[in-house]
Amino acid sequence: MSYAVGIMSGTSLDGIDVALVKITGETYELVDFQSYSFELGMKEKISRSLAKETSDVELICSLNFELAYLFGDAVLKICEHNKMNSSDLEFVASHGQTVYHHPKNANGLVSSTLQIGESSIIAEMTKTTVVSDFRPRDMAVGGQGAPIVPFSEYVMYRSQTSQRILQNIGGISNATIIPKNGALDKIVAFDCGPGNMIIDELCRYFYNEEYDRDGQYGSLGTVNEALLQDFMSHPFIAKPAPKTTGREEFGKQYVEEMLAKYPDISANDFIKTATLFTAKAISSAVTPYLELPTELIVGGGGSYNPVLIELLKEELPEVKVMIQEDIGLSSDAKEAVAMVVLGHRTINKLPSNVPSATGASRDVILGKVTYY
Amino acid sequence: MSYAVGIMSGTSLDGIDVALVKITGETYELVDFQSYSFELGMKEKISRSLAKETSDVELICSLNFELAYLFGDAVLKICEHNKMNSSDLEFVASHGQTVYHHPKNANGLVSSTLQIGESSIIAEMTKTTVVSDFRPRDMAVGGQGAPIVPFSEYVMYRSQTSQRILQNIGGISNATIIPKNGALDKIVAFDCGPGNMIIDELCRYFYNEEYDRDGQYGSLGTVNEALLQDFMSHPFIAKPAPKTTGREEFGKQYVEEMLAKYPDISANDFIKTATLFTAKAISSAVTPYLELPTELIVGGGGSYNPVLIELLKEELPEVKVMIQEDIGLSSDAKEAVAMVVLGHRTINKLPSNVPSATGASRDVILGKVTYY
Repeated sequence: MSYAVGIMSGTSLDGIDVALVKITGETYELVDFQSYSFELGMKEKISRSLAKETSDVELICSLNFELAYLFGDAVLKICEHNKMNSSDLEFVASHGQTVYHHPKNANGLVSSTLQIGESSIIAEMTKTTVVSDFRPRDMAVGGQGAPIVPFSEYVMYRSQTSQRILQNIGGISNATIIPKNGALDKIVAFDCGPGNMIIDELCRYFYNEEYDRDGQYGSLGTVNEALLQDFMSHPFIAKPAPKTTGREEFGKQYVEEMLAKYPDISANDFIKTATLFTAKAISSAVTPYLELPTELIVGGGGSYNPVLIELLKEELPEVKVMIQEDIGLSSDAKEAVAMVVLGHRTINKLPSNVPSATGASRDVILGKVTYY
Repeated sequence: MSYAVGIMSGTSLDGIDVALVKITGETYELVDFQSYSFELGMKEKISRSLAKETSDVELICSLNFELAYLFGDAVLKICEHNKMNSSDLEFVASHGQTVYHHPKNANGLVSSTLQIGESSIIAEMTKTTVVSDFRPRDMAVGGQGAPIVPFSEYVMYRSQTSQRILQNIGGISNATIIPKNGALDKIVAFDCGPGNMIIDELCRYFYNEEYDRDGQYGSLGTVNEALLQDFMSHPFIAKPAPKTTGREEFGKQYVEEMLAKYPDISANDFIKTATLFTAKAISSAVTPYLELPTELIVGGGGSYNPVLIELLKEELPEVKVMIQEDIGLSSDAKEAVAMVVLGHRTINKLPSNVPSATGASRDVILGKVTYY
């Protein structure tokens, strides 16, 4: 039995998630989860580092260390909160902040990815071995370096009695499908379409709010059929899985086009229709893969939108739709816990990518080990 | 007994140096050394990545992987040249290409350094564990992350019978002083002043050549006393060691100023005087540390300039001045071999920074381990 901390810092720039996990054999139990927001200045610095136009080598070099001090601090805080010494951890596993991800050879660039948050700093601050930078090793064997969570989903969610779909609803929605009694190499993972991205953008436009808290606006709206048809005619929906999408397809520009096209639809009707579109994009993507009995477990910010969850249940009547909390886990903590699972594999020199999900030619030991 | 390959890619952007080393206990024997030049396009890309103005996150992300393919290739080539399989190596140790080094908190940046050349790619190509990125861990304990070679110099050059000075003459000249029978924590290391930097710049200016091959121009010149006095009045010379310098102080701009100030001095006289200045900068920096008997072993490009070596001998009459080759080693290979020494320490979870040389608060295990 040992303890480890996983650190996740997502592309949404919300801040730093840390999960303190108890490891017993191959069982991982969440002890505590904490989230620490970035200060505005740091958020702005990271934003600058993400874009070709505003980034430079000096910023990336410094930010690599600056972020690491924050990551190290987050580990110290969660340990203190649990009256533990970080030096008693078996290891710390850090995803790092993705500042660039370019999974194909194109535009004069080779397939590559860049996560920053210098492991040496974290190791020194926490007095613990650090495992970090999990994505590049998968890309070295032809994978996309993403998704990174299927292995931990397999370890933590596989079931003897039903197919399980891990449905993440962040900005984009993506699914990992674990067959009943399934082997690791039978896992499939793909993006389904927009997650909260369209709903969030509409909330910003209509209400100057970041998201539809508790589905308050969606719950007051009525679906507009013309708009829904238009949403569903987006070419991504008809594309067969596995497929990937992003902000380019369902971000601000797309939402602004739709708003301009339907100026007479009320705020709440727009939001309700977008919420149904989000649910339908998910159901249409996963339906071809269903092998009942199926449990679909929703994680990510979308799991806290009850309107979206209700619509998903209606769209998938034969599927048992749940949220992470229904099975005693936390949506928020899921990715930080996943880092612990990956780190634990690496420490034991075991592979943890899932080639059927990333497209890699074989499984490999992910990450880099920095000794204290 | 095992074999390992060290990879070094220096700030001069000459190309990739690889050393195949046989390891027996704690003894390191150079088996083969190869140097592979960068193609012009790659050299230009790296140059762009070094400057704030021309670099961006996309370039750095891609170049991190592109360089790694070249590093991996260099390892495969030297193995093939020696009829070995790279998978039979115990490990590969890679310094990476330094794209930024900022050893102090200043100008809104934290103390940080950035070496690129993704270890995951090298591991996959060579089918071998890779140890990489040695500098950040030293900086995490307050060191400057440089110099990185003193530990290997200690291992490979310490002597029971004399003080030994490892005098590297690259663009800048720097010395590592190993006391007779000295312990690791008694090692001192510092920059002495310009290495080949001024001579090279003059050769470019007068002859459109990259350097003074075999001292051909310096050997034909006569020292100009006024110019020499002016060179020696540079404030860096009087500064007490330990001290560090760089292109900012002795680069193109400085040379152009001196050329403008002394328009009547002939090319070869200018070069000869700069060569003597280089020798005097070294002798004045190391003299306060001399504890005879002393052997000064010159490495780096400057060791192949016989005029410079002769002048050094004249400036340090009591010191036995030699070049690497005089003791059966190779100037060119020294840094690549050093990577093997550091990597070997890391693989065995042993420290290899030298706090008295870098300013670190203690010794730590350098680098990151990427498993094949």
